[in-house]
Amino acid sequence: MRRLVLTVTCPDGTGIVAAVTGFIAAHDGWVVEAAQHGDLNTGRFFQRIEVLADSLPFGVDEFAERFSGLAGELELDWHLHDTDQKRRVVVLVSKEDHCLVDLLHRWRNGDLDCDIPLVVSNHPDLRALVEWHGIEFRQVDFGAERKAEAFAEVASLFDGAQGDVMVLARFMQIIPPDLCERYAGRIINIHHSFLPSFAGARPYHQAFERGVKLIGATCHYVTAELDAGPIIEQDTARIDHADTVDELLRIGREVERSVLARGLRWHLADRVLVNGHRTVVFA
Amino acid sequence: MRRLVLTVTCPDGTGIVAAVTGFIAAHDGWVVEAAQHGDLNTGRFFQRIEVLADSLPFGVDEFAERFSGLAGELELDWHLHDTDQKRRVVVLVSKEDHCLVDLLHRWRNGDLDCDIPLVVSNHPDLRALVEWHGIEFRQVDFGAERKAEAFAEVASLFDGAQGDVMVLARFMQIIPPDLCERYAGRIINIHHSFLPSFAGARPYHQAFERGVKLIGATCHYVTAELDAGPIIEQDTARIDHADTVDELLRIGREVERSVLARGLRWHLADRVLVNGHRTVVFA
Amino acid sequence: MRRLVLTVTCPDGTGIVAAVTGFIAAHDGWVVEAAQHGDLNTGRFFQRIEVLADSLPFGVDEFAERFSGLAGELELDWHLHDTDQKRRVVVLVSKEDHCLVDLLHRWRNGDLDCDIPLVVSNHPDLRALVEWHGIEFRQVDFGAERKAEAFAEVASLFDGAQGDVMVLARFMQIIPPDLCERYAGRIINIHHSFLPSFAGARPYHQAFERGVKLIGATCHYVTAELDAGPIIEQDTARIDHADTVDELLRIGREVERSVLARGLRWHLADRVLVNGHRTVVFA
Amino acid sequence: MRRLVLTVTCPDGTGIVAAVTGFIAAHDGWVVEAAQHGDLNTGRFFQRIEVLADSLPFGVDEFAERFSGLAGELELDWHLHDTDQKRRVVVLVSKEDHCLVDLLHRWRNGDLDCDIPLVVSNHPDLRALVEWHGIEFRQVDFGAERKAEAFAEVASLFDGAQGDVMVLARFMQIIPPDLCERYAGRIINIHHSFLPSFAGARPYHQAFERGVKLIGATCHYVTAELDAGPIIEQDTARIDHADTVDELLRIGREVERSVLARGLRWHLADRVLVNGHRTVVFA
Repeated sequence: MRRLVLTVTCPDGTGIVAAVTGFIAAHDGWVVEAAQHGDLNTGRFFQRIEVLADSLPFGVDEFAERFSGLAGELELDWHLHDTDQKRRVVVLVSKEDHCLVDLLHRWRNGDLDCDIPLVVSNHPDLRALVEWHGIEFRQVDFGAERKAEAFAEVASLFDGAQGDVMVLARFMQIIPPDLCERYAGRIINIHHSFLPSFAGARPYHQAFERGVKLIGATCHYVTAELDAGPIIEQDTARIDHADTVDELLRIGREVERSVLARGLRWHLADRVLVNGHRTVVFA
Repeated sequence: MRRLVLTVTCPDGTGIVAAVTGFIAAHDGWVVEAAQHGDLNTGRFFQRIEVLADSLPFGVDEFAERFSGLAGELELDWHLHDTDQKRRVVVLVSKEDHCLVDLLHRWRNGDLDCDIPLVVSNHPDLRALVEWHGIEFRQVDFGAERKAEAFAEVASLFDGAQGDVMVLARFMQIIPPDLCERYAGRIINIHHSFLPSFAGARPYHQAFERGVKLIGATCHYVTAELDAGPIIEQDTARIDHADTVDELLRIGREVERSVLARGLRWHLADRVLVNGHRTVVFA
Repeated sequence: MRRLVLTVTCPDGTGIVAAVTGFIAAHDGWVVEAAQHGDLNTGRFFQRIEVLADSLPFGVDEFAERFSGLAGELELDWHLHDTDQKRRVVVLVSKEDHCLVDLLHRWRNGDLDCDIPLVVSNHPDLRALVEWHGIEFRQVDFGAERKAEAFAEVASLFDGAQGDVMVLARFMQIIPPDLCERYAGRIINIHHSFLPSFAGARPYHQAFERGVKLIGATCHYVTAELDAGPIIEQDTARIDHADTVDELLRIGREVERSVLARGLRWHLADRVLVNGHRTVVFA
Repeated sequence: MRRLVLTVTCPDGTGIVAAVTGFIAAHDGWVVEAAQHGDLNTGRFFQRIEVLADSLPFGVDEFAERFSGLAGELELDWHLHDTDQKRRVVVLVSKEDHCLVDLLHRWRNGDLDCDIPLVVSNHPDLRALVEWHGIEFRQVDFGAERKAEAFAEVASLFDGAQGDVMVLARFMQIIPPDLCERYAGRIINIHHSFLPSFAGARPYHQAFERGVKLIGATCHYVTAELDAGPIIEQDTARIDHADTVDELLRIGREVERSVLARGLRWHLADRVLVNGHRTVVFA
């Protein structure tokens, strides 16, 4: 069922929920889901409301127009999303396919409510897989001499595909600061460790060396500071002394794909609100 | 901080949240937490709101009085709880102490926000432990000939202690239907299996025989139908072929105490709303 | 590295490990992994040993020939597997593809050490997916009138493909007793509940109705008694009151595919030994 | 049942298991459990064997005497433990009691197979709890000026109590290098984070600041390098954006006590073998 999803953040205070839900009720809007959070440290308030589109006497544009008055009074930062407008996800990959296979499968069976117009890679390996799904595959040359040009191409491809979200599904290249800035809150990475442990390269090797008893993965928004962006989701899996680095890689693949899928799914449903360098997730 | 916790259930419809939050906002009430759920199958709506007591211009009684008008209009079943009024928990135990030790520890360190005026047992074994905590311990004779009398004594002790909740912390006696009825939604049991598997006696032996790879525990409200009441919380733990029944018992003890503590904690905070033979848990 | 995997079961007694490892040591065999289990209830002993093939002065056949003398003396049931001889897995599917996609991906990237010569289905839907992987796809007509013929075809296809293991990856048809018998310990099913809860049809609907707080999946050997065969692996995932049956299905898919993959992986590595209606899993 | 537990570590090679199990078999020893691990990176071999004491024709001393010949030939580092000789655990605490309550309960009900002759603290708060269990409680003055004297007292108390293991159950004082050295492999700490994340002070505050979605705890042997000793056990628990630091502390207490209890339990059963700065855990 088509829904309008309203997300709001503002300085906390009394009457915000009453005002917002009062506005919706005044137009007989049927609220199917609602969640809120007040951050005591920052004094910020976060809210997410799903309204049945057909319960309203007008469409998304008129909702937005009418709501903007109230929003101005209450100093709300707000966003309205129509679930009929599927978000466009551009996936960046390298050679490893476990996250990509998982995302494509979830997209095919409807678990991920989005369009995937394009997959970009610095290697040719995954072309056949992507094209079998009827999705365009573009290879970009990331040779050492032309990183800047390569990222310019990526940005151009993303914009050309009218991308809403860029997903780094084990892309293994560091996004330059200007792109982090330009697409702030729209680039999602899966890091193959339980951050902040083992940031940077070869986290499974680091985990093996340290002798940890669980490994993990972290889905986060990409910021200019490497592996330090707001965390959306994490999970861990148990290992033991008999597991080699190769087995850590195998066990980790399962955690990575699940964590990325959950994080992306929540992002697509407007369930993730950035709160400084942390996130509010209305899962 | 003192809060008023309002829980509401009613037939789902538009404007309920707006009406309720509007009422609170009209009196400048500061909402610190709110959650809601609409059950699509039953058409019932559930809501829980926490308001800062000091933000309101009146106390809990006047809140209730003023709110009852609105509640009547909207056909709300509602309950208002003042967090300064600690709930009184009466614990029933047999010989096993792991759940009791855990509850008493959580009560002592403030994790469980309640009073524990009384522990009742059919055995003398745990008297010293209970009394060391400064809590009254009463032993009731549950001899085969006098089960009815014994339960009448339990009810009388519970009422005498002005009990709000009766917790069966591995009590190992089946509560008779009349008490289940009389204290509906106020008796909480911990069953040592992942229900509905292994209902009844000796669940760990049953689990061992069946060769399951995880064991579990279930915290539920007690109803006249054995081990079939609304489930509040469950969890599982991994076992393997080398684990004997004794080891299942040991591993299970840890799951039992955690699951019971979580279930009771949520009940004490008005986070559990019964929805037929299921529950809504605003955890 | 090529290894010989020896699995042994026999009445428990002193000196078995010494005899078996002594035999291997006498030929300078390098043991890379070993595990054992004595079942106190049944008095059975179980052992699994991995020997580096190149450390032995002879091949698998001569190992078997020489070992059979010792095995006879000790009344061992034993099995010797050469990791260079990949097991042949025939997958049976219906319309749901999440387990199949996962198995095929793990087969492609080497996580599952086997050949998959054939996928059989009662529906045409998954043909393209299977054939893209270069695997033969055969559709069998399971019309109500011809179940027996259909299963005869399945058996014939399985034998024709020289299948070692038959995997029911959400096949949704009940295997007849004669096939269960014929391929005892070689048919692996994934059931979409945490058995013994919710055996039979529509387990997620049953779970929803009961109001459980975790759902699960069970990988087990198929026997003539429905959903009652020896359990290889299980796992659970958390749900809450807001999850509809569709969301249970979605969450369950992830548990199912992981549990099936682990169970099959262990079976392929000779890590699962049947012990009556239970299993010993040297994971 | 009384058992002798033999743990062995040596350079890996062929025939070690055969030699050791052959020795036991030659004396009709009944092996109830055995596990082994070869570390491919270091070339070290680790083995743990449990023999039924009554199956042997001699006691632990004669076993040791006879075994030492073989051990010398094979260059084994080895240790023999008689389960009738309970290990003596000295617990160091500060003011927080959740780990101590848990350890004392597990000791009382037999889950932890050890004696606890003494609890030492830098504060008086937990005296009554300890003494109720019939255990000696000693308070040591850790004033800023006399850290060295205080630790000398601790060592003296530990030695006087004939301690085998020193458990830091949220002791909150840094053990000086000389004691780390003197009791190497015998001091077990519970750190309240998922190491290597959030080493040092106030890990829950660090975790909150970073916005992680799981918190954890780590049980490890204490070495001179703070929070960097060989890890015995770890676990994590889920948190969300609504959890304050106080709630992290509450959730963390449950993880801490479980992880510490598992780690100590394995240590007491000779299941933990140190392998450089990592551990082999035959759980």
